Amino acid sequence: MIPEQVLDRVHWNDHGLVPAIAQDHVSGKVLMLAWMNREALLCTLTERRAVYWSRSRGRLWRKGEESGHVQRLHDIRLDCDADAILLSVEQVGGIACHTGRESCFFLGPGDDGWQEMDAVTKDPQQIYGGSHA
Amino acid sequence: MIPEQVLDRVHWNDHGLVPAIAQDHVSGKVLMLAWMNREALLCTLTERRAVYWSRSRGRLWRKGEESGHVQRLHDIRLDCDADAILLSVEQVGGIACHTGRESCFFLGPGDDGWQEMDAVTKDPQQIYGGSHA
Repeated sequence: MIPEQVLDRVHWNDHGLVPAIAQDHVSGKVLMLAWMNREALLCTLTERRAVYWSRSRGRLWRKGEESGHVQRLHDIRLDCDADAILLSVEQVGGIACHTGRESCFFLGPGDDGWQEMDAVTKDPQQIYGGSHA
Repeated sequence: MIPEQVLDRVHWNDHGLVPAIAQDHVSGKVLMLAWMNREALLCTLTERRAVYWSRSRGRLWRKGEESGHVQRLHDIRLDCDADAILLSVEQVGGIACHTGRESCFFLGPGDDGWQEMDAVTKDPQQIYGGSHA
């Protein structure tokens, strides 16, 4: 059972969401930032895997539901202002990004704008066929 | 000179902001999540230190301007959707949080709600006197 206080203390924004950072629990690599609503946080805590709210699809998004790249929960933290969450996870498959990279943070600033700094680990077509999640 | 494309590509939200995660460049510890507007990102890139937009104060916030706990920029990344930023920083003083802790993410879920999991490194009164930043 997850105490109601855990959900109540979070400062949900005007859309009922809070940003959640996923970090690899071994390497410390920051994998992605996504969003949670109250139900997503509850599911994350009870299912011990990262569950987000997909703003584009307007529904819960169990990370890895299509790709198999589930994020198993090791630890979860709330910040001092209660408006950001940090997940420490095991990234199944070693790929968090829909582009087939370990981390979504692969763009670095260059002379012509943001450049791809990390190579693709696995072709997204092999991961998803047609869709992605 | 920072190319305009670097600022233009970011997907600023309805408030003209983007979430920015600060991570210690050596330990990999996630220190905090704050927000940047276009000017804050430009200042971060040109001054090579973390500059945020303080939503509570409605002005630019040069991290460490009162505390001395400046975040020197080592690397910066944008994510695949261009709506989140990751800063790799040297955290001067080893304290990012206004509570006197290394990281703002010090609350973990317990039977009675979120519990303080990390001890205070330095008394905030010693850091700020009266105010904080």
